[in-house]
Amino acid sequence: MYSVTVRDHMMVAHSFRGEVFGPAQRLHGATFVVDVTFRGPELDGDAILVDIGLATQRVHEVVGDLSYRNLDDEPAFAGTNTSTEVLARTVADRVAERVHAGDLGGAAGQVTGLVVTLHESHVAWASYERTL
Amino acid sequence: MYSVTVRDHMMVAHSFRGEVFGPAQRLHGATFVVDVTFRGPELDGDAILVDIGLATQRVHEVVGDLSYRNLDDEPAFAGTNTSTEVLARTVADRVAERVHAGDLGGAAGQVTGLVVTLHESHVAWASYERTL
Amino acid sequence: MYSVTVRDHMMVAHSFRGEVFGPAQRLHGATFVVDVTFRGPELDGDAILVDIGLATQRVHEVVGDLSYRNLDDEPAFAGTNTSTEVLARTVADRVAERVHAGDLGGAAGQVTGLVVTLHESHVAWASYERTL
Amino acid sequence: MYSVTVRDHMMVAHSFRGEVFGPAQRLHGATFVVDVTFRGPELDGDAILVDIGLATQRVHEVVGDLSYRNLDDEPAFAGTNTSTEVLARTVADRVAERVHAGDLGGAAGQVTGLVVTLHESHVAWASYERTL
Amino acid sequence: MYSVTVRDHMMVAHSFRGEVFGPAQRLHGATFVVDVTFRGPELDGDAILVDIGLATQRVHEVVGDLSYRNLDDEPAFAGTNTSTEVLARTVADRVAERVHAGDLGGAAGQVTGLVVTLHESHVAWASYERTL
Amino acid sequence: MYSVTVRDHMMVAHSFRGEVFGPAQRLHGATFVVDVTFRGPELDGDAILVDIGLATQRVHEVVGDLSYRNLDDEPAFAGTNTSTEVLARTVADRVAERVHAGDLGGAAGQVTGLVVTLHESHVAWASYERTL
Repeated sequence: MYSVTVRDHMMVAHSFRGEVFGPAQRLHGATFVVDVTFRGPELDGDAILVDIGLATQRVHEVVGDLSYRNLDDEPAFAGTNTSTEVLARTVADRVAERVHAGDLGGAAGQVTGLVVTLHESHVAWASYERTL
Repeated sequence: MYSVTVRDHMMVAHSFRGEVFGPAQRLHGATFVVDVTFRGPELDGDAILVDIGLATQRVHEVVGDLSYRNLDDEPAFAGTNTSTEVLARTVADRVAERVHAGDLGGAAGQVTGLVVTLHESHVAWASYERTL
Repeated sequence: MYSVTVRDHMMVAHSFRGEVFGPAQRLHGATFVVDVTFRGPELDGDAILVDIGLATQRVHEVVGDLSYRNLDDEPAFAGTNTSTEVLARTVADRVAERVHAGDLGGAAGQVTGLVVTLHESHVAWASYERTL
Repeated sequence: MYSVTVRDHMMVAHSFRGEVFGPAQRLHGATFVVDVTFRGPELDGDAILVDIGLATQRVHEVVGDLSYRNLDDEPAFAGTNTSTEVLARTVADRVAERVHAGDLGGAAGQVTGLVVTLHESHVAWASYERTL
Repeated sequence: MYSVTVRDHMMVAHSFRGEVFGPAQRLHGATFVVDVTFRGPELDGDAILVDIGLATQRVHEVVGDLSYRNLDDEPAFAGTNTSTEVLARTVADRVAERVHAGDLGGAAGQVTGLVVTLHESHVAWASYERTL
Repeated sequence: MYSVTVRDHMMVAHSFRGEVFGPAQRLHGATFVVDVTFRGPELDGDAILVDIGLATQRVHEVVGDLSYRNLDDEPAFAGTNTSTEVLARTVADRVAERVHAGDLGGAAGQVTGLVVTLHESHVAWASYERTL
């Protein structure tokens, strides 16, 4: 099994609903360093799993749609906490849509799974893993 | 599948028995940077897999019980080498006990597995993975 | 010359005023990984420049006073952008006050300078350096 | 399941054939930071999965055979692009041969799988995972 | 004194002349992770030392001019080894030209020094520091 | 001004005398990731500040003399705490001796200063800086 990972980041404001979050119930923010991993059992004719240049561009677009925003105001997250787990799944699902739409090029045809990891600090991170 | 990881560290002395260890048979020591990963297929009603604050506290307690000690004198490790592999399993098993005892809160109910990684230097680390 | 550094982090929301900031004029947020370096030419009788335990506690207090907040609402920053540079200086000045007040213990008597670095992402950081 | 990872690096020149590679079709180069992970369900009588000293030596030999070279001139890669994915598989296959030949010592008898990750920069890396 | 740093990278082929270089006399390559630090005693009216967006763009252009190339063929380096030290100075001098040309905007007017660090691996890096 | 840094590590046991150290008064241990920086204003005829291969070897020897030991038993440290600050100075002084003895080759003739940083964990490190 092969995998290819590209890293980007986003900077957002948000707040959490629920006593379990303590001071994080207040409006605050985070830099999320975002690692998107593409997985698959085979390489294509160019000997790659995915075009790393295209992967970098598409991930940057997905991350850019979330960055420099207050996520409390985003309709996409109405009614849910934008926990690191939820944001990891959101990035994974949006990258998956791009793969299915062919936006990562022919090389991505052999991609069978994604893992997205969001690092919220040097001491905490969360991941979401899914098939394609 | 979701995962959440928190990082802490411990500083211990120990020695190894067995010619395979060469100079590490002498009393020496290590800083282990400890990553504890909680895994599970679902989030709870607050949209989290585990309360990251509680997870950080519990991991700190488990790691604190081992830190600033000479592991050669600890009854828990009598008769075994405290290799990085063994210590990763020890931390994983002790965190698992806390999860089962309910010490990580209701959110941890959906945690189905743990991975513990101990970094002994910038060029070597070991992990232990188990179910809950 | 000796130096000792401790690392912590804070998570804040803020926005910037000024066209130069582009999309960062919107309310967004950041995790700042904070490195506080204490510098001095001599060690004390215990052979340390500063008590690393006390240093860690005091830095955590200073960082905690800023964390999980919307800095746009903090009176301390009225009329100024909370750029990474400004926040690095703020942390340095507040740690300096603690040193002067004796809150870092006798060992800190030989500290003559501070450097504070705030990492806003894996690709950008800023520092402020001052004497004591 | 246990795992043990050791890190080394190699510095190579190469070029790629295929329009998808853009400017990387020109002769250029890379430092690959190489992480080799050994996996297995059991530890040996010394309480280790693999002798970390021997593992470090063997990985260094495998990596050394590729380092300080122009991979375009290496017969082993005739007719294929030396993508990060291909090089990760190459390192994994060559380490596997060493394990099978007994070059990692008796401790390695319980190793059942390998993962090799090559970091080509701070923002991109690729892995290859295989059984033994 | 303030400083702001942005990180980028470049991937090059080259070889060295001189017995001291051993196997690095052969054509090989490197990824250089490039950190460019801008230093200055004052912030501008927007409370920044340098526009981090413009700094990132200009550094990317300077690094891009060197990337995906065989430095042995570049006239700029005829007659000199492209050691990590030389490349750090080259990047610093080229960024300095951009600052002097006004390409980093008005905010850069208070920049008085540069430090450029090139990481050639996880275990070796070199820097060049200069005034403006 | 140029600088070149190489990284290695050492694993030691030790204990501290003095109430300020709290639980670290017990025998414990540490991995120190060791960064040795060579500084100087000029490069030699090969366009390098120091032979990175020789620097790596010499640093490895200096670090090796301290590694896999209980520093409480080392005559060199009788009567002093082996704090991270003291160990940084020790490594710097021993590397300086090697430079003065010519053990780093002719290239090191233009080295005018050293900085040694010892990372004791992901959240704490100390440095010692000296001239040659």
